[in-house]
Amino acid sequence: METAGQTHVRQHEFRDQLLEHGLLIPTGVPGVYGRSSGFEDTVELVDGMMASLGAPDAAEVMRFPPILNRTHFERSGYLKSFPHLTGTIHTFAGNEQAHRMVLKEAEAGGDWSASFPAAPVVLAPAACYPVYPALAGRLPAGGRLVDVMSYCFRHEPSDDPGRMLMFRMHEHVRLADPRTVIAWRTEWLFRAKSFTDALGLDARCEAASDPFFGRGGQLLAESQRDLRLKLEIVTAIASDERPTAIISLNYHQDHFGELFGIKTAEGSVAHTSCVGFGLERIALALYRQHGFDRAQWPAPVRKALGL
Amino acid sequence: METAGQTHVRQHEFRDQLLEHGLLIPTGVPGVYGRSSGFEDTVELVDGMMASLGAPDAAEVMRFPPILNRTHFERSGYLKSFPHLTGTIHTFAGNEQAHRMVLKEAEAGGDWSASFPAAPVVLAPAACYPVYPALAGRLPAGGRLVDVMSYCFRHEPSDDPGRMLMFRMHEHVRLADPRTVIAWRTEWLFRAKSFTDALGLDARCEAASDPFFGRGGQLLAESQRDLRLKLEIVTAIASDERPTAIISLNYHQDHFGELFGIKTAEGSVAHTSCVGFGLERIALALYRQHGFDRAQWPAPVRKALGL
Repeated sequence: METAGQTHVRQHEFRDQLLEHGLLIPTGVPGVYGRSSGFEDTVELVDGMMASLGAPDAAEVMRFPPILNRTHFERSGYLKSFPHLTGTIHTFAGNEQAHRMVLKEAEAGGDWSASFPAAPVVLAPAACYPVYPALAGRLPAGGRLVDVMSYCFRHEPSDDPGRMLMFRMHEHVRLADPRTVIAWRTEWLFRAKSFTDALGLDARCEAASDPFFGRGGQLLAESQRDLRLKLEIVTAIASDERPTAIISLNYHQDHFGELFGIKTAEGSVAHTSCVGFGLERIALALYRQHGFDRAQWPAPVRKALGL
Repeated sequence: METAGQTHVRQHEFRDQLLEHGLLIPTGVPGVYGRSSGFEDTVELVDGMMASLGAPDAAEVMRFPPILNRTHFERSGYLKSFPHLTGTIHTFAGNEQAHRMVLKEAEAGGDWSASFPAAPVVLAPAACYPVYPALAGRLPAGGRLVDVMSYCFRHEPSDDPGRMLMFRMHEHVRLADPRTVIAWRTEWLFRAKSFTDALGLDARCEAASDPFFGRGGQLLAESQRDLRLKLEIVTAIASDERPTAIISLNYHQDHFGELFGIKTAEGSVAHTSCVGFGLERIALALYRQHGFDRAQWPAPVRKALGL
């Protein structure tokens, strides 16, 4: 087992290599990178493979911008569990005099937006969050299945390129009765396995937990792990010893159904589950495990991606 | 000429029709919508047409998340001219006690993020903003040409579906000597004309100006219009009488070159220009002018889009 210090060195190294190879473009902010043409192409090919895996289900496509109604965010419970990851949006609402003060503060290097009031939106913490309020009410018989993809925000600045401030998540979201939802998630476990096999990634499935805030959070995390509500497919990105989640399969039970008033056709509270593919992380795992030159990747991997 | 009141009614009507036809999905926040499968497909087809137009130039693709280094944002001058459109990002940095206060404030319906400190990033106001700092230094002979696309944020809440809080902009950015940059923009004027013709949109080109803040802003706007620094292709979206820009061709002269230290191969300050296609707006113009059912769109338009 390597120490946290060693992991840090390795994260730093892998990030520097990605920058040297021109795959990521520095922006001067830790965890925020531009994507080169090559890296972006890999992300799109990975996304295409994920889409193919889910194609038989004919999910209903919805696309949301990477922001979420602030009221829906409050109702979701995210602020209670993950305040440290939250990103809020603020806008200027003053007159010309207030504007002069803002510019003065900026000139002095201060927090010029300290007095900006909160906008009615926050940054989306996951692609699926806008789906639940949009589907409030009664589901059709058999429930619904939605395909969402968007940039997401998590405030965890790091030298680990696998922890970007904003990254893309492609998700399928199932809303139905518990039995249907659980069977659906199990199907995706098999698909995830065939996905990582096809990409030649050394991956495994783990019962996992979300990074709940504070001391009370530990109990929540233990309960989540015990009930196997969160399963993660993990693989080496910045470190071999501390692998990173690239796919997450979450069973929310009636959490969102209850909060947003989603009912099954039969009238009971709907259960929900989502499976999310972290597109940048999967691309990073490919570069980490197969090298920085895509032309040298194993033939079966290139074929699976359509390269 | 219709009055502002009439325009408002029409905006409202067109938005309601888009929602009724299921093309946009309401989120409860004015200017923030989900995109249905059909609408998103139209956006992607429009994006593909724009990519084809620019393909002969073999632009270098870069993709940035929809956020911008706060320092770069400050240096860009955006805050001086457009404070009212700016979106800043704030994150929580407190302990468990501070967290309890935040939850209490949220419970009371207050501005629970009022004390959140500013993050080192703001929302990107245009897709091209991260490009200029990334290209600081000396350009190769002939300059550079970059292809960027991302969600952008503009705080202008409205019933006009053509004024979304977040929308996608696909841009090409040219950085070179003035003569090269001007010739390049002129070439895109012709391309823009063939683009709107192929899509059967009733469009025209106008010398335009940015919505500068305050009284001083009027002078800036007039000067910008007189020098023809901003050309817009406008067409009817929410109103026939007050058409909306769908393509913007901006010549920044040495503004960004000076601010971010971008030099030509010969060592002079680089001039820059960008041409931006507003993807949602073009899709909206198609629905407005050809109807809500794509199967009924004119055959040449369907063919141009690849439908």
